[in-house]
Order: sequence, then C-alpha cells, then structure tokens
Amino acid sequence: MIETPYLLFLGDAPDQLAAKVAQGIKDWRPQYALGQFRMEGCKADLKIADMSLAQAKEAGAKTLVIGVANRGGVISQAWKKVLVAALEEGFDLASGLHNLLRDEPDLVAVAESCGRKLHDVRVPSVKYPIANGLKRSGKRCLAVGTDCSVGKMYTSLAMDKVMKARGLKSSFRATGQTGILITGDGVPLDAVVADFMAGSIEYLTPDTDDDHWDMIEGQGSLFHVSYSGVTMALVHGGQPDALVLSHEPTRPHMRGLPGYELPSLEALRDTALPLARVANPACEVIGISVNTAAMSEDEALSYLEGVEKRMGLPTVDPFRQGADRLCDALLAV
Amino acid sequence: MIETPYLLFLGDAPDQLAAKVAQGIKDWRPQYALGQFRMEGCKADLKIADMSLAQAKEAGAKTLVIGVANRGGVISQAWKKVLVAALEEGFDLASGLHNLLRDEPDLVAVAESCGRKLHDVRVPSVKYPIANGLKRSGKRCLAVGTDCSVGKMYTSLAMDKVMKARGLKSSFRATGQTGILITGDGVPLDAVVADFMAGSIEYLTPDTDDDHWDMIEGQGSLFHVSYSGVTMALVHGGQPDALVLSHEPTRPHMRGLPGYELPSLEALRDTALPLARVANPACEVIGISVNTAAMSEDEALSYLEGVEKRMGLPTVDPFRQGADRLCDALLAV
Repeated sequence: MIETPYLLFLGDAPDQLAAKVAQGIKDWRPQYALGQFRMEGCKADLKIADMSLAQAKEAGAKTLVIGVANRGGVISQAWKKVLVAALEEGFDLASGLHNLLRDEPDLVAVAESCGRKLHDVRVPSVKYPIANGLKRSGKRCLAVGTDCSVGKMYTSLAMDKVMKARGLKSSFRATGQTGILITGDGVPLDAVVADFMAGSIEYLTPDTDDDHWDMIEGQGSLFHVSYSGVTMALVHGGQPDALVLSHEPTRPHMRGLPGYELPSLEALRDTALPLARVANPACEVIGISVNTAAMSEDEALSYLEGVEKRMGLPTVDPFRQGADRLCDALLAV
Repeated sequence: MIETPYLLFLGDAPDQLAAKVAQGIKDWRPQYALGQFRMEGCKADLKIADMSLAQAKEAGAKTLVIGVANRGGVISQAWKKVLVAALEEGFDLASGLHNLLRDEPDLVAVAESCGRKLHDVRVPSVKYPIANGLKRSGKRCLAVGTDCSVGKMYTSLAMDKVMKARGLKSSFRATGQTGILITGDGVPLDAVVADFMAGSIEYLTPDTDDDHWDMIEGQGSLFHVSYSGVTMALVHGGQPDALVLSHEPTRPHMRGLPGYELPSLEALRDTALPLARVANPACEVIGISVNTAAMSEDEALSYLEGVEKRMGLPTVDPFRQGADRLCDALLAV
C-alpha cells in the first residue's frame, strides 16, 4: 500500500508522452496529485502546481512517485540527487521502472537510515495463495480484449468513475504497474509466479458488500499467445459477473506478433464467456468498449453504431463518450 | 541439464508410494537408473541393484537423485549425512523437494568446496524469453486434461516410448518436477513468472526436424480455476499440431475444488481446440487417454469403447493398453 497523496516526479521528460504514468494519476486520481516536480529541461506538464520537495512536504504529500519513463534503463545521477533528497525530506518513493529502486544501493542505504519505503510496483510484495475458487460476495467486472493495449485499463477506470459519481460502491482493482501507481495498491500480475496468478486475483478482489463492484483491470488477451495465460488467470481468479469486450479496430495484427490477426468480437465473446462461466456460471457479457482514437468523430460514431447493431450490446468509446452506458448495462445484470 | 546416469536415493521411504519419483525414473528411463540407495528402515524397493555411494561411482553414476518425498518439509540429519557424503564422493545432487537444496547452508558449502552441482528442479534455472509466436519446424503433441492429475504426463511418456520403439524421432519435454528428474531437463512451468510462461515453452520445444515429435508434458487444466493460466501458456507456447484429451472418469469434482464439476470431453475438445488453433491453425485432436486405474478390466474396456464411439476418436488407457493407437493417430495427422 503506497501512502497518498503524491508529489509526481516528471524528471527531465523529453515529451508529454514520457510522463503518461503521471498523467494517468492526475486524470484518474486528481486528489492524489498534489503537485509536480520537474527538473531542468522537462518537456512534460500536468498543469498542476509545480512544487519543491519542501513545499510538497508542507502541503502533505507522502510519496514521490516516479511518473515518467527513464532512458537507457538506468536511473541517472541527476535523478538520484532528487530521489535521495526526497527520502531525506521524509518521502517514500514509488516506481514502476524496470530497473528497481531496491537495486540501487545508495537509495536503499538512505531509505533505511531515514526509515522510508521504496515501492517497486513491478515486483510482488505479497506471498499470494493458490486460488481456491470459492465463491466470493460482491460483484466483479473484467474487461477482456481482442488484443493487448486496446483500452482495458481505461475502460475499467472510466466505469469506476461513473459508478462513484452515481454514489454507487465501486473499486478499481489494479493488475499492472500504471494501475497500481494510480490507485496506490494492486497486483503486478505479469510478475507473479505461474502457480499463484489466479490466487493473486482472488486476493486482490476479496469478499465485498453484495452491491459493491470491483472493476478489475484486464491484462493481455486470450488471443495473444505471449500473454494469454495471464489473461486466463484473470478470467478464473476474478470470477467476473460481467465482461466488457475491448477492441481497437485499426490494428493490422496482434501487438508484437506480425502474422497473427486480431480475432473478431464474436470470437472473443464466444471464447471468453464459456471460460468465465467455469468460475461463475452467472457471468454475462454486458457491453463493448472500443478505442477509436485513430478515427475521426464521424468514422468513430458510425463504427460504434455498426458494432452495436451487429453484436446487440451497448458499444461505446469511453474516452469520447464516457462509460455511462456500460454502467447502465452493468447495473441491469 | 542434470548429468546421467543416476543413483536413486530412496532414503527411509515409509512405503512404495513415497518413492514414486524414483519409480518414474526407473519405469521410463531404466538406462538412467543405475542403482538405488536405501537407508535403514526403507520400505520402498525399485527392484534394481542396491549400491553404496562408492559402488555407484565406480559403475559410472553422475548424480544422486532424491527420488522420495520427505516428511515434515525438512531434510533430516540422517539424509544430510548421505547427501554430504555423496557430494564428497563426486556426485551432483538433484531434487524436486519443496525445501530446496540451495537453502541448506551445509550442502551449499560442501558442494562448493567439492565443485559439485545442486539441482533444485522446482526452480527455473534459465532466464526465459517472452514468447514470440513464430512458427517452429517439427511437430508437437500436447495432452490437455479435464482436470489436473488425470494422466497427462504418463500419456506423453507412453507415446514417446512407442515412437522410439518404432524408430521414430520423439522427445518427451518435461514441464514439471517429476518429468524433469525423469529426463534430466525441462521447464518447471508452475514456478515461472507469468510474463515468461509461454516463452519458456517455446524455449523448451525449439525448431526440430520436420519428422520429429515433441511430446509436451501437460499441466493443470483449462477448466481448473487455480491453474488454468499455466495450461493456457502450454496451449499457446507449445503451438501443438496434435492434442490428446486426458480424463479420469471416477473423480467426484475438480481436484482440490469441491463444487466444481469436471467438464465433459466434448467441452474440453470444444474449448481447447479453438484456443490451440490461435497458435497453430492446423492443430487437431487426435485421441483420448483415460486413466481407468479405479475400474475393473471389464468396466474399463466397456467405458473406453463407449467414449470412443461417442467421440469418434481412438480412446485408450495407455497404462492398460499402451499408447500405440494414439501414436497411429498422431502419425496420420
């Protein structure tokens, strides 16, 4: 559990895209995004207050979150100076970088002497159980994709936001590094040992109130041969009551797999639903989310309408249109 | 890679069943099973030569394999004496125990000073790649089960044996600890990190001759909610040309999951085959193996006949009948 609120470290980000983790936190948990810390030459801007470490501390920030990708797979000396100063100032550090904070002896030494925590969210911090398959109370919704990176996390965050805006009980349950940094908690599923994958998702989505929805962040795709095992563990460990099908319609082939075509939404439905019903016989596909970022507004609306008609399910781009119709369908289950 | 041949350590096994790993090695790789080492009170017997460490060394044994389950999750002092003496005598040690050899400081120290290896086959020793999904040369057969522990490993070993007896090219590819100890090599799939599962199976079953068959050891079941992700990685990473459906007909519920019924063989076929065809569109289900150990001969034969008629596929218990008919079907693909 990462302590909130955050000071978002943008470092010397070469462009806005490099700071997309920080942007995600600011977009989805603005209450955690107390301020941004930018170094000289930083080209990203979240349009929130620039703060020094001391100002952020004064304002109540608990953790400095590295919200930017680094270059070359190393933590530069320029970054280190800030990170060390942050630990000394009393901040914990949180990072989703491939090179771990815990592998930097100087950061470890300073963190220990200051009594601060280093959170590497790519690495599991819990010894997860083997899944027991027992039925849990409460409701769960999982987005499953025709491919990786088609907007599953965005869809679940958008649905969680709508539910909360309506005063309903909902939790976004993060299963990847960006999601974990956004919410401050979760399971880095792709780094979990095979035998414990489904168990880690049972752990992540425990018994809750009967009218509470967990919006579980999806990973990979049942049709992506590199990562399908991870997706399968979500489908069974999550025991979802509702599935949302997620799709990106302009992709020429499966991400990173030239020669592998994307499945149709029908094939995704017909594959995912029977598998989900092994763990939860009441599961239903409730809607479709499409990432239409690569289309014009007209193209997008006409595409969404076509899919909705063909599949007989509410079909939206949650970025263009919000997730209200998906939540309406969810609540009708 | 574990050096062969082996001296099989049976320790103080309380009964024959406790030595089932050693029994598997002796049954499937008799040429590796040079002799057995039994301590006082050992109740298991492989019916091969009893040897002292010195005798086994003289006979050419390279590795002492712990072929017996231990009690209470600790390696006893009585065992330790033998293991230390074996290292000093020039043997490597191999073990599939949960408590690792490498976690025993005394064994580590002696192994280092003697220049010997400690093989803990439950732990991956390779940094596996992420799966790339590229089509590989050669042929692959995978057993998929209605449940865990229904005879998938036995089926693949029996098919491999038939192929070799016919002078055909075949390799058994181990994905679990017993299989790895039997063959001396493999991937401990349930201990691999999620992102690398499918890649580890691509690594295990590389390009081979066009007329070579890899018999890939199955794990778990697509219908077992605790382990289905592991099975999924085998189906996609293995890119099988042929599937064998494996079943145990007397089981009241999924192993370890009261309340979860076993799927029908039809449901298994209809789930596994479309998923396998994502990675290999030419994949076919070629036969069915049934573990009829809990049935009388008459019951078993009548059950097998019934399934064969219903499913239209060669259906055998490879233990009772051998795997010849499965291999015939394989070669007809």
